[in-house]
Amino acid sequence: MPRYRLTIEYDGTEFKGWQRQDGQPTIQATLEQALRALTGTELEIFGSGRTDTGVHAIGQVAHVDLRRRMAPERLLAGLNAHLRPAPVGIVHAAEVAADFHARFSARRRTYLYRILNRRPAPVLERNRVWHVPVVLDAERMHEGARHFLGRHDFTSFRAAECQSTTPVKSIEHAVVTRREALIELRVTSRSFLHHQIRNMIGTLRFVGDGSRPVDWIAELLLARDRTQAGQTAPASGLFLERIEYD
Amino acid sequence: MPRYRLTIEYDGTEFKGWQRQDGQPTIQATLEQALRALTGTELEIFGSGRTDTGVHAIGQVAHVDLRRRMAPERLLAGLNAHLRPAPVGIVHAAEVAADFHARFSARRRTYLYRILNRRPAPVLERNRVWHVPVVLDAERMHEGARHFLGRHDFTSFRAAECQSTTPVKSIEHAVVTRREALIELRVTSRSFLHHQIRNMIGTLRFVGDGSRPVDWIAELLLARDRTQAGQTAPASGLFLERIEYD
Repeated sequence: MPRYRLTIEYDGTEFKGWQRQDGQPTIQATLEQALRALTGTELEIFGSGRTDTGVHAIGQVAHVDLRRRMAPERLLAGLNAHLRPAPVGIVHAAEVAADFHARFSARRRTYLYRILNRRPAPVLERNRVWHVPVVLDAERMHEGARHFLGRHDFTSFRAAECQSTTPVKSIEHAVVTRREALIELRVTSRSFLHHQIRNMIGTLRFVGDGSRPVDWIAELLLARDRTQAGQTAPASGLFLERIEYD
Repeated sequence: MPRYRLTIEYDGTEFKGWQRQDGQPTIQATLEQALRALTGTELEIFGSGRTDTGVHAIGQVAHVDLRRRMAPERLLAGLNAHLRPAPVGIVHAAEVAADFHARFSARRRTYLYRILNRRPAPVLERNRVWHVPVVLDAERMHEGARHFLGRHDFTSFRAAECQSTTPVKSIEHAVVTRREALIELRVTSRSFLHHQIRNMIGTLRFVGDGSRPVDWIAELLLARDRTQAGQTAPASGLFLERIEYD
């Protein structure tokens, strides 16, 4: 059975996350419905990882095995035709080797987190940002984010329900930039703990507003205590941007 | 009566443009409704110019005279409370001199036009771009756009229903950039003809796809013939970005 890699874009606002759940609108179920409509068979799609309710994707990756070979362009166009008008679309499709696995072959995941930092609430960026009305210093946030680089125990930034076998993760890249009212954090790692990025940004926010020093981040990593770090930032600002494979 | 300048952001998708029209959802009517709800009086709001159906604004400017003085922050917050959940918001409010006029005092208008240049249709950018699936060369489009700089007769880029007394306009700035699949044109002038930017971009598109030479733009300016230039590009890609005053 030929295997296909799909790169997927979605607006997570109206979905209960990636993973199929009975009777709930999810990205996985929406894609599997489109696959059924296109091929006439029940197929399972495997994502690189789950995204939570309200989290978006620019480049989620999944794989699926078809019963019969189909040109990747036909698969892409056919799925997109069946997906419309849902805010989910295939942006790339390719046939891949049978040992490719969207989750287990992934080497590097990059997320983007967006904050709209101005007094007035978002209009054009509604549901696509975290609105923080108090003034944040993005350079301080960037300095704070540098403490995340390298291999650390991220217990202080891990959701209670996280199922990872270890709290130790290696952050390869963490950069905070600002362009007018928009502050963006980009962070890359092989994998992340549940809510890790949202907890990192919910914590960096207090470095940004000056209520905590930059070095607080280093202290929190050593403390290994979730209760000492900041709140979980909203899902609306989080985008799964890119998954890299060998 | 104290006069206020309002800077306004909106998603134009669901509106029949800026200007009040009986029984139609328009930005002006939505703002005047919020003003009535906030102040209890019928007030007229004056915009820097109309935007067409489906055109967005990041920084539209309008002025309004209130019966009684109100702190600008209160005006901003009060209007935003009454505007929700409409996709219209006030991003800045200030009291201005009685001779300030949103339209007649404007010295410079900047528009942004966004093209999503990739095969798959937009998902996250739906209604916020013009989707052009054939490959465009943004550098060629930039070269073409340079022909617009300076003072020209824009008859070839003017809508039939345009009410301007003259087709001669001066373009101060016209830059095309590309970041991955997103091509952006920014263009600045004291004022524009009806559909001028959408006609400029609908024409530059044929320079971008290689079907016309860069110098075609110069020929079209000299031709003064609307039928020779490209189609009017969709409203969805157009954003009124900034109005500058003395």
